[in-house]
Amino acid sequence: MNITEKILSEKVGYEVNPGEIIEANVDLVMSHDGTSPPAIKTFEKIADKVWDPEKIAIVFDHNIPANTIGSAEFQKVARNFIKKQGITHHYINGEGICHQVLPEKGLVEPGKIIVGADSHTCTYGAFGAFSTGMGATDIAMVYATGKTWFKVPEAIKIQVEGELGNLTSKDIILNIIGKVGIAGATYQSAEFCGKTIDNLDVASRMTMTNMAIEMGAKNGIMEPNDATIDYVCRRTGKSRNQLNIKKSDKDSVYSKEYYFDINNMEEQIACPNDVDNVKPISKVEGTSIDQGVIGSCTNGRLIDLKNAAEVLDGKKIHEDVRLIVLPASREIYLQALDKGYIKTFMESGAIVCNPGCGPCLGAHMGVLSEGETAISTTNRNFKGRMGDPKSSVYLANSKVVAASAIKGFIARPEN
Amino acid sequence: MNITEKILSEKVGYEVNPGEIIEANVDLVMSHDGTSPPAIKTFEKIADKVWDPEKIAIVFDHNIPANTIGSAEFQKVARNFIKKQGITHHYINGEGICHQVLPEKGLVEPGKIIVGADSHTCTYGAFGAFSTGMGATDIAMVYATGKTWFKVPEAIKIQVEGELGNLTSKDIILNIIGKVGIAGATYQSAEFCGKTIDNLDVASRMTMTNMAIEMGAKNGIMEPNDATIDYVCRRTGKSRNQLNIKKSDKDSVYSKEYYFDINNMEEQIACPNDVDNVKPISKVEGTSIDQGVIGSCTNGRLIDLKNAAEVLDGKKIHEDVRLIVLPASREIYLQALDKGYIKTFMESGAIVCNPGCGPCLGAHMGVLSEGETAISTTNRNFKGRMGDPKSSVYLANSKVVAASAIKGFIARPEN
Repeated sequence: MNITEKILSEKVGYEVNPGEIIEANVDLVMSHDGTSPPAIKTFEKIADKVWDPEKIAIVFDHNIPANTIGSAEFQKVARNFIKKQGITHHYINGEGICHQVLPEKGLVEPGKIIVGADSHTCTYGAFGAFSTGMGATDIAMVYATGKTWFKVPEAIKIQVEGELGNLTSKDIILNIIGKVGIAGATYQSAEFCGKTIDNLDVASRMTMTNMAIEMGAKNGIMEPNDATIDYVCRRTGKSRNQLNIKKSDKDSVYSKEYYFDINNMEEQIACPNDVDNVKPISKVEGTSIDQGVIGSCTNGRLIDLKNAAEVLDGKKIHEDVRLIVLPASREIYLQALDKGYIKTFMESGAIVCNPGCGPCLGAHMGVLSEGETAISTTNRNFKGRMGDPKSSVYLANSKVVAASAIKGFIARPEN
Repeated sequence: MNITEKILSEKVGYEVNPGEIIEANVDLVMSHDGTSPPAIKTFEKIADKVWDPEKIAIVFDHNIPANTIGSAEFQKVARNFIKKQGITHHYINGEGICHQVLPEKGLVEPGKIIVGADSHTCTYGAFGAFSTGMGATDIAMVYATGKTWFKVPEAIKIQVEGELGNLTSKDIILNIIGKVGIAGATYQSAEFCGKTIDNLDVASRMTMTNMAIEMGAKNGIMEPNDATIDYVCRRTGKSRNQLNIKKSDKDSVYSKEYYFDINNMEEQIACPNDVDNVKPISKVEGTSIDQGVIGSCTNGRLIDLKNAAEVLDGKKIHEDVRLIVLPASREIYLQALDKGYIKTFMESGAIVCNPGCGPCLGAHMGVLSEGETAISTTNRNFKGRMGDPKSSVYLANSKVVAASAIKGFIARPEN
């Protein structure tokens, strides 16, 4: 069995097979400021009390601080729910993006089932958890019962070998998505393995599982490496032996296997308007940009900020470009502050916003007008994702975004 | 003659009297991301070239980064105008709030006439300039001709004496507005004087002239003190002798004279929904709040951040309150960063946003929902100003806002 099958089997108490419909208890359910209110509305039609107030996490990140009266009303609904139900884990006053805050707060562990009312809930697969995004109505049922149903996914194996060098895990995952395609892993468990993955730091692993959904995957998952286990132990106060670490058997069956050798890879860029429209940077260098964005649940972590700060140090953003930087969490912001990265960003002319999703989904803090182009470390470049339907978004790693913001066009970092 | 009459007389070349209509050359015209596009639209109907591209300043602060497609479109219009006309002074990528950025960049001097498409343009009176807000159509005429018309205002004299102690100039100006009333200085030149004013630092003086418009004044003005002259010399590279400093004659005529003794004043709070609904803090202590805001062209300067950081140091924001902090400019943000204030804010649980107007006008970054209450260092508490028409805003100094954010209700700072 593979990791995902082992987690699901353990949860239901019998050996599951791909394609089976199962009902399982979940370990944690997450919703944010955009999805909590519709989930709460449905919940209140079916129950009075949540199943377990300690297993629900609510994070405000999509529109924080509230950008409209409507989003302020949504947040009020969620605040009232938190109080009424005694929800323990609430991070609603600017702690950061849900997918960063949950691991930081020790709520993510290997072997757990975590569901969330956000499509990038698959991020927690970096920790060896089975995690997936669901609609708000399904989340309402989980609030009420602690259970949900899944079709056990088939799995695809994505093996990555080779040296990263000056590239990042964003380049790896973009390269993978370019090959697999936006529907190439539909309802599959995307299992990442290989020496390159084993050697990645926690943040870089999260970047990859985060984007599993961009291939249509039900979940993304990795065997926890030492760095990940150390991280989880530090955050949960548990020892390694107390963690429920699953590994795929050697004879696991996969519906498809991919092999990536990254040794001669260039920086990868997802071009408008699909995440799988991926090209090496040499094909798009020189494309004029209006905005750069560094942040999001994909690439707003300390390593991403460090990479960008190193490129920006002592340089100035091009006067025709605004560069928006959003650390993924309060903790990361404070670390970046201590390391001097925030100062570097501000001195370079960047706009440093508060932790949160920012312009990723075009809601506020950097919306594009007709004809404008952004290069961004975020995860989606669909038509109109960051604003006007006639705007364009290129996806890249944070070094490329920083280098491009200095030049005014898509540019390779000098390293 | 008083200061305002002297400035206007010098500009037109003859002695002006209150009530006269004059046409004068202006030294600088300012517009922001909200007002530039309508001004540009009108300008383009009447002229091809601006009168002087070095005497126009354009600052993006109201919706920065762009919060909607509409605001992004507005900013694009202004960007194109800047390029086409060769406007020298543009601060459009997060430099901060216009009324802070212009003095910082050395564009404000005593004796100048400065007009702006923003009602708080009266701020520059702190530097002994005649400055006033105008509509976008009038600004279009200034873009084209460098001239505008004024009715020479009558003047009121507002003398302030006494020791500030632990209070701030925000308390003084709120106390004044409470007495004078929101229409009490309509189309008057509000001239502030007295030992207390003479002893104020530049930032604290700007807080007061900034709010002259809240009494309906055409302009607010002060004789430049040494601190102000030093500031202007540092920013402009000019010596004191090169500045055109005007002082009111002893026999100047005022339509009304006010005298304020602040020796036994409490902290002052402007209560919903009028800026002149001012009460001492003892009358409103304990009022529950949902949001605190520290920032704006009124109170987003280093002294305001310092005052707040001292109250917040080592403390935590109440969990039912979000505290939003917005330094008024990039320069102030960097200073606050060096001083450790940004760290203090973030550690206390505050949300530190990028320099700009933020939630002051209810456009984004902290919009209130129905029934919510904010306490804010901003300048207006009109019905619906910060969001829903059924939300409420109390105005106060930054120490009071910080202390209230810790307690969850309007509270006096312990000092």
